Amino acid sequence: MAVNLLPPDPARLRPVAGVELGWAEAGIRKANRKDLLVMRFAQGATVAGVFTQNRFCAAPVVVCREHLAQGAAIRVLVVNTGNANAGTGASGMADARATCVEAGRLLGVAPEAVLPFSTGVILEPLPLDRLLAGLPHAIARLATDRWGEAAETIMTTDTVPKAASRQLMLDRHAVNVTGIAKGAGMIRPDMATMLGFVATDAGISGAVLQTLTRETADRSFNRITVDGDTSTNDSFIVIASGASGAPPIVSRDDPRYAALAQGVTEVAAHLAQSIVRDGEGATKFMEIVVEQARTVEEAARVAYSIAHSPLVKTAFFASDPNLGRILAAVGKSGIDDLDAGRVQLFLNEVWVARDGGRHPAYREEDGARVMKNADIRVCVQLGRGNAATTVWTCDLSHDYVSINADYRS
Amino acid sequence: MAVNLLPPDPARLRPVAGVELGWAEAGIRKANRKDLLVMRFAQGATVAGVFTQNRFCAAPVVVCREHLAQGAAIRVLVVNTGNANAGTGASGMADARATCVEAGRLLGVAPEAVLPFSTGVILEPLPLDRLLAGLPHAIARLATDRWGEAAETIMTTDTVPKAASRQLMLDRHAVNVTGIAKGAGMIRPDMATMLGFVATDAGISGAVLQTLTRETADRSFNRITVDGDTSTNDSFIVIASGASGAPPIVSRDDPRYAALAQGVTEVAAHLAQSIVRDGEGATKFMEIVVEQARTVEEAARVAYSIAHSPLVKTAFFASDPNLGRILAAVGKSGIDDLDAGRVQLFLNEVWVARDGGRHPAYREEDGARVMKNADIRVCVQLGRGNAATTVWTCDLSHDYVSINADYRS
Repeated sequence: MAVNLLPPDPARLRPVAGVELGWAEAGIRKANRKDLLVMRFAQGATVAGVFTQNRFCAAPVVVCREHLAQGAAIRVLVVNTGNANAGTGASGMADARATCVEAGRLLGVAPEAVLPFSTGVILEPLPLDRLLAGLPHAIARLATDRWGEAAETIMTTDTVPKAASRQLMLDRHAVNVTGIAKGAGMIRPDMATMLGFVATDAGISGAVLQTLTRETADRSFNRITVDGDTSTNDSFIVIASGASGAPPIVSRDDPRYAALAQGVTEVAAHLAQSIVRDGEGATKFMEIVVEQARTVEEAARVAYSIAHSPLVKTAFFASDPNLGRILAAVGKSGIDDLDAGRVQLFLNEVWVARDGGRHPAYREEDGARVMKNADIRVCVQLGRGNAATTVWTCDLSHDYVSINADYRS
Repeated sequence: MAVNLLPPDPARLRPVAGVELGWAEAGIRKANRKDLLVMRFAQGATVAGVFTQNRFCAAPVVVCREHLAQGAAIRVLVVNTGNANAGTGASGMADARATCVEAGRLLGVAPEAVLPFSTGVILEPLPLDRLLAGLPHAIARLATDRWGEAAETIMTTDTVPKAASRQLMLDRHAVNVTGIAKGAGMIRPDMATMLGFVATDAGISGAVLQTLTRETADRSFNRITVDGDTSTNDSFIVIASGASGAPPIVSRDDPRYAALAQGVTEVAAHLAQSIVRDGEGATKFMEIVVEQARTVEEAARVAYSIAHSPLVKTAFFASDPNLGRILAAVGKSGIDDLDAGRVQLFLNEVWVARDGGRHPAYREEDGARVMKNADIRVCVQLGRGNAATTVWTCDLSHDYVSINADYRS
């Protein structure tokens, strides 16, 4: 069902020196599927992350924040699917900590050097015994060429694994950027998505990497939505192993920063858009561009109002150019002094509404022709300023309802 | 498909002295269905209204606001279905005004004494000729005992007409309160719903009636949501004909004000809940109660975050007690300093989450048992204060998608 999205070719996912991956079938929720991932980083790697703003954040998110705040060098990630370890109270916290202790023991690092991640059903106890029993199997498989298998391991309702890879030159040093992500529902990241991991063998100081991670998130994972439901477990992690031998970047003013940030953003945006293309039940991919806003925040508010409207999303599912619903979504976005008479609406190249009303030259068949595509661009001009933003989303189909009505069965 | 909602018994809808209703089959969108309603009020009646906050409000909403602001005595309402006259620019405004001119001419009142209302598809020109041609037929039917037919006339995707009636005593005067409403999708009223009309033969001054109308809306139509999409055409109108002979209420301090306000609110809340019970594709009716908030606004934000979550709504559709989704919706509601560890969650009488985590005594079968009901009460306690509010909503089903993917065909 994914919209114009093919599984990644594992042969095109570049290994990142200093980053190993291994998986296990731990049986967290279902037997005989990859559901536990371990990532290990070379000594000297820097790691930065951004996490969900949901106040019911999961226990592993709390532990990740603690470990990163302590400033310990992060050497290991442990990721399970099948259970979110969210809404699990004190025992959930204990389970997340126990995961770090055991992974640290097996790999010879401190518990604080381990970050735990969980994704799956909320409000159910984590089956800790099965998770811990799976760790040695995942560790036994650690290797640098398992990015494709890692992408499979972290899938839940995803129908296609998500991975992307780039090579770029920092001065004369070739460095690799490779990442994986998962997510198809409960997707409206607010800081990051559930879950994205991007690694590079470039070197970069911890503080500068944190800046790069935030800037990257704001141009990729923080601009997608499937259903407006910000997850309890969103996490986006960037790892810089430094193993390429390129001299480390220690300042945002280093001219190589922009080059690396662009490479990481390309990988992250590809992963983020892949999540939308594989959104639960998606049959259409929509790029929502809002221009001529006073501020980027205002543009984003309008874009999300469109992207979250069930009426807009079902119209796209039906390929029905019932485009007044887009204007209604603009009007309810909460901009009190919006002048509807200055609003323009375009669907791909078709000018649908001029100055707030149906364009005299607009013909239903033009709208219908665009709506037949699987990839559609909606552009709204507000006539208020020069700020703009873009949000990516998908339609709302019968399969979204089926998937979420059946998710646990 | 409506949830525990039967059509009103026309014999139990009390006529309101001084208020006549008549309908026609004008063929606005489809032939052979009631789609045009005229209401006429006795001289001396007072009328107050609240309207959508959507900035793309429809042309008739603009005209209603103008006529009410001019202070002219309102004598006539004209309501069409099949076309919203929204996103129609200058010609839409001209069509709304022409409707008032013609209705005024036929009934011998000024155009400013007429309020126009439209509901249906957005961004398409109003078929004014057919509407005007239908007016004499509707006027020929004007009578006080047509509330049931009027409720049918204003239906769009509604499956059940919505009407309610009460009789109450103001001192020794019996007065009647009867109302009708429509709406099933694009329902997240922000001031009022699309469309509600409540009439009483009590007398009340215009200024006090406006207060009563707003207070009533805030306890009825402004507390329901189907899909979070605030309509372009929401309108809630209260008419007080004064024809009961009860001395008019001219002050909010009059002890009869509270009695009348309660009667009107009961009718309005019944209508508002009827809209949710007949929400597009609804199979469940949920009452979302949020308590222990710092302010009513904060409680409402949390309640709407739950009520709008597609994941919560699909879980209810599936009768699946996947109740962590409710906690996730609480957590993403935007209360930055929410302490998840103080949050309690109840489903009817079942204590599901205690202090932010699964209650030790909670059993999945208890949740599953409650979820089987068609009427379910969700109660969230935030542990932050004493404010509370209640929001009514419905689930998200396959039929919602079908109805909105097929709406125009």
